[in-house]
Amino acid sequence: MAALFCLQNNFFPLPKLTTPPSSTAKTLTSVTTRRAIIFGSSFTVLNSKPLALALAQLLPTDELQLQEDHVVQLFQDTSLSVVFIKDLELSKVPKSSSKGVVLNEDEDAKLEGTGSGFIWDKFGHIVTNYHVVAKLATDASGLQRCEVSLVDAKGNNFYREGKIVGFDTAYDLAVLKVDVDGYEIQPVVLGQSNNLRVGQSCFAIGNPYGYENTLTTGVVSGLGREIPSPNGGAIKGAIQTDAAINAGNSGGPLIDSYGHVIGVNTATFTKKGTGVSSGVNFAIPIDTVIRTVPYLIVYGTPYTNRF
Amino acid sequence: MAALFCLQNNFFPLPKLTTPPSSTAKTLTSVTTRRAIIFGSSFTVLNSKPLALALAQLLPTDELQLQEDHVVQLFQDTSLSVVFIKDLELSKVPKSSSKGVVLNEDEDAKLEGTGSGFIWDKFGHIVTNYHVVAKLATDASGLQRCEVSLVDAKGNNFYREGKIVGFDTAYDLAVLKVDVDGYEIQPVVLGQSNNLRVGQSCFAIGNPYGYENTLTTGVVSGLGREIPSPNGGAIKGAIQTDAAINAGNSGGPLIDSYGHVIGVNTATFTKKGTGVSSGVNFAIPIDTVIRTVPYLIVYGTPYTNRF
Amino acid sequence: MAALFCLQNNFFPLPKLTTPPSSTAKTLTSVTTRRAIIFGSSFTVLNSKPLALALAQLLPTDELQLQEDHVVQLFQDTSLSVVFIKDLELSKVPKSSSKGVVLNEDEDAKLEGTGSGFIWDKFGHIVTNYHVVAKLATDASGLQRCEVSLVDAKGNNFYREGKIVGFDTAYDLAVLKVDVDGYEIQPVVLGQSNNLRVGQSCFAIGNPYGYENTLTTGVVSGLGREIPSPNGGAIKGAIQTDAAINAGNSGGPLIDSYGHVIGVNTATFTKKGTGVSSGVNFAIPIDTVIRTVPYLIVYGTPYTNRF
Repeated sequence: MAALFCLQNNFFPLPKLTTPPSSTAKTLTSVTTRRAIIFGSSFTVLNSKPLALALAQLLPTDELQLQEDHVVQLFQDTSLSVVFIKDLELSKVPKSSSKGVVLNEDEDAKLEGTGSGFIWDKFGHIVTNYHVVAKLATDASGLQRCEVSLVDAKGNNFYREGKIVGFDTAYDLAVLKVDVDGYEIQPVVLGQSNNLRVGQSCFAIGNPYGYENTLTTGVVSGLGREIPSPNGGAIKGAIQTDAAINAGNSGGPLIDSYGHVIGVNTATFTKKGTGVSSGVNFAIPIDTVIRTVPYLIVYGTPYTNRF
Repeated sequence: MAALFCLQNNFFPLPKLTTPPSSTAKTLTSVTTRRAIIFGSSFTVLNSKPLALALAQLLPTDELQLQEDHVVQLFQDTSLSVVFIKDLELSKVPKSSSKGVVLNEDEDAKLEGTGSGFIWDKFGHIVTNYHVVAKLATDASGLQRCEVSLVDAKGNNFYREGKIVGFDTAYDLAVLKVDVDGYEIQPVVLGQSNNLRVGQSCFAIGNPYGYENTLTTGVVSGLGREIPSPNGGAIKGAIQTDAAINAGNSGGPLIDSYGHVIGVNTATFTKKGTGVSSGVNFAIPIDTVIRTVPYLIVYGTPYTNRF
Repeated sequence: MAALFCLQNNFFPLPKLTTPPSSTAKTLTSVTTRRAIIFGSSFTVLNSKPLALALAQLLPTDELQLQEDHVVQLFQDTSLSVVFIKDLELSKVPKSSSKGVVLNEDEDAKLEGTGSGFIWDKFGHIVTNYHVVAKLATDASGLQRCEVSLVDAKGNNFYREGKIVGFDTAYDLAVLKVDVDGYEIQPVVLGQSNNLRVGQSCFAIGNPYGYENTLTTGVVSGLGREIPSPNGGAIKGAIQTDAAINAGNSGGPLIDSYGHVIGVNTATFTKKGTGVSSGVNFAIPIDTVIRTVPYLIVYGTPYTNRF
C-alpha cells in the first residue's frame, strides 16, 4: 500500500508560470528594504504601544540575518544549474530535418511527465534520473521527445531538445545532451557523499508538480540507505532527508551549505500513487553519480555493461 | 487526482482543547529553566562518563539560543493577531433580536468547517480567505453563521459573531467585522511581498485540523506562482513555502523573521480530498491583500466591481 | 476520513539495511573535509569565473557551521539511546528452554509491525508506546514476541528479546526489559515538558518505515494538545511539532537542543491508513512519562490500577 514512489510528475497539467526566471532574478535583487508598511489609512492605525515595543525586540540578530542571506545566496548561485525536463509524445512521426523537430507542446506533442536535472558541464551534458526519461530511452515509436528548460549564467531562459547520451538503470541515472551554442551555462559544483553527517543542513532544488526552481530545506536524516532501482536491484548508500521532495523533484540536486551537490533527489516514501512527500525522502549519493556519469558520457553505457 | 487543495477544514470534529490561550501564555513565561532532570531513582542512575562528557559539549552556542528565543518571541508577539474561524449552520432560523443570535454550537448549530484569519485593524476587521466563509457569503437560507475566536492584547480569549463586510472571489479574500467593544486587540504588522527572496525564513500561524495557534516553519520556496482562485481565474504572484500548511490553515498569516505578514496561507498541493501538506504550499502575497482589503472595507465590493 | 494515526508500522516489509550502525558511526567521524571535488576530467571543467566568485561568498559563517555541528553532535550523542522494535508472531509455540527462544525472523517468525523506543536506564528498561507492543501485551496464544535492536555505548549493534514489564493504556506507554549483560548502554537524558515554548527547536529520532535512526527536525508547533489514547480516553498536554513523524516513529524520543528528551513521538494527523506525516504531529509530554514509568517498572501496572 505504502511504497517508495519515484518522483517524476506524470500526466500533470502544468501551471502557467507568471514570472520567467529573469523576472524572478529581478525580484531577488532588492534585498535590503524589508520594512513594515504602516498602512496609511484610517482602517489600519497602528498605535498599540505594547506591540510596538514587542516588535522592536523582534529585530533578528545580525547572525540570523546573515544566515538567511546565506540561504538566499545559496539558492541564487545554484539554481542556475538546475533544469526542468518535460517528457513529450508527438502525435505523429515528424518529417526528418537537419536540425531535428521544433518542439511545440501545444500543437504537436502531449506532455507525459516532468522532472528535474542539473548541468554537469559547460558542453551541455545534463544529469537526471533514468526514470524521468525512461520513455525516451526505450522509445521504439520515434514519437518520444524530451524538452529541457535551462537558464544561462546571465539568467536568460531557453529551451532545448535533450538527446540521451547514456543511462544506467542500476543507479537510476541518465545523461542528456543539449545544444548550448551561444549560451554560457553554469555547471554544478560537485561535493562528496562519503563524509556526510546525519544532522547537517541540506537543500533540494527542483520542479515539484511543475513549480520551477523550488527550494526546500531540511537535514540529512540518515545515511547508507537502500532504495529500489529501475532494474529491480537496489541503490546503496542513499541519503535520506526531511527536506520536502515531491513528484517532479526527480533528478534534481540535493545540495549542502557550501552549494555543493551531494546527491540526486530520487524517491519519497509515501502512499503509492500520490507522490506526496512524507518527510522520508531519498537521494542517490553523489559519489555514485561521479563514478557513473563519465562512463555514460564517453561510452553511452554503464561501466558494467562494457565487458 | 492530485490537486491544489484549499485549506478550509470541512466537517472535521474539532478536538476539545485542554488549555485555553491564557494558560498557554502562562506556559510561555518560564523561559530560562531548561535543565536536565537527573531522575532521582535507582532506575535511572546516570553515571556514564562518556555521555556526561558528550552532553557537556551539547550546550548550544549563545547565538543558537538567541535564535530559538527569537522564534519563540516572534510567535508570542504575532499569535495574538491570529483568529480561529468556525462556520456554523443553525438548525432553524432564529427569532430576530437586537443583538443577534447567541451562538451555541452544541445546541443550535452544526459545525461545517473551520479556518484561520488575522486581525487587520483595532476596529475589529478580520481578513481571511473567501473560501473559508463562502457559505456565509452566499447564504440564502439565513442559517449560516461564522464564529470568530480572538485573543485580546492581554491574552484573554473571547468569541464573537463575524459579519461579512466584503469579499473578492478573484483573490480568494474576505473581510469580516466583529464587535470588539471593551477589548483591546492587536492588529498584525503588514510587510511587503514585492521584495521577498527565495530562501528567506517564513512562519505560518493558524489552526490546522482545528489545533489552535499552530506554528510551522520553513523557507520561501518560490515566488511568482499562480494558484486557482474561487472565481475560476488565477491568483498571480503567489508565495510558495515548505512550511507545513494543512486543512484549517486557510486564511492565516505567513510571517517573515521580523514578524511582518507577507502572505495569506491559502492552498497546498496534495492528493485531492486529503488536505495533507505536501511541502508545496501557497500564500496570497500581502501586496495583493493590501490593494484589495481597503476597498472591501469601504465599499464592500472589490475595486473591479464598482464601475 | 482524516484521523489521528498512531505511528506503528504494521505489515511493512522492512528494507535490508546496507550499513550496520557501526559503519554509520564510521561515516560520522570524518567531519572536517567537506570540499568541492573539482572533477579532474575533460567532461567537468570548471572554469566559470562568475561561479567561482559566487561560491567564494557561499562559505557559511563560522556560526552557521557551529550550528550544523551542534545538530550533528546532538544526533551522535542521543541516537545511541534510541532502539528499534519489531513485533513478531511465531509460527508455532516454541519448546520451552531456560534461555527463551532464539528469535529468527526468517524461519520462525512473521514480522507484524515495527516501532521505536528509547533506553530508560542502564538495567535495560526500554520505554515505548503501548500501541507498538499491544499484541505482545495482550497475547493469549503465546506466539507474540518483540525484538529490540540496540546500540551499546561503543556503537556495537545487538538484538534482544523484549519482555513486557508494564503498560498504561491511558497514556499509551509501555516498558520493556531486555537483557543487557555484558553491554554498557546509554540511557537518555530526561528533560522537562512543563516549560516548553512554542517555537523552540526540536528533533525526532526513530525508525519511520523501518529506516533506522532517522533524524527529523522542526519546532514545537503547539502545547497543551489532546490526543486519543488506546483506552478510549485522551492524553492531555501533548506536544505538537512540525518535525516529520511517520509510521514507525512511534515510541521514539522527541529531543530539545540540549539533547534532553521532552516527549514520546506518538501520532500524526493524516489521512487514515497512510501514516504519512502531515506536519501536524504529536508527542506525549515527558512529564507524563516521568510520572508513569517508575510505577510500571516497580509494580507492572499504572498508578491508577493499584488501588
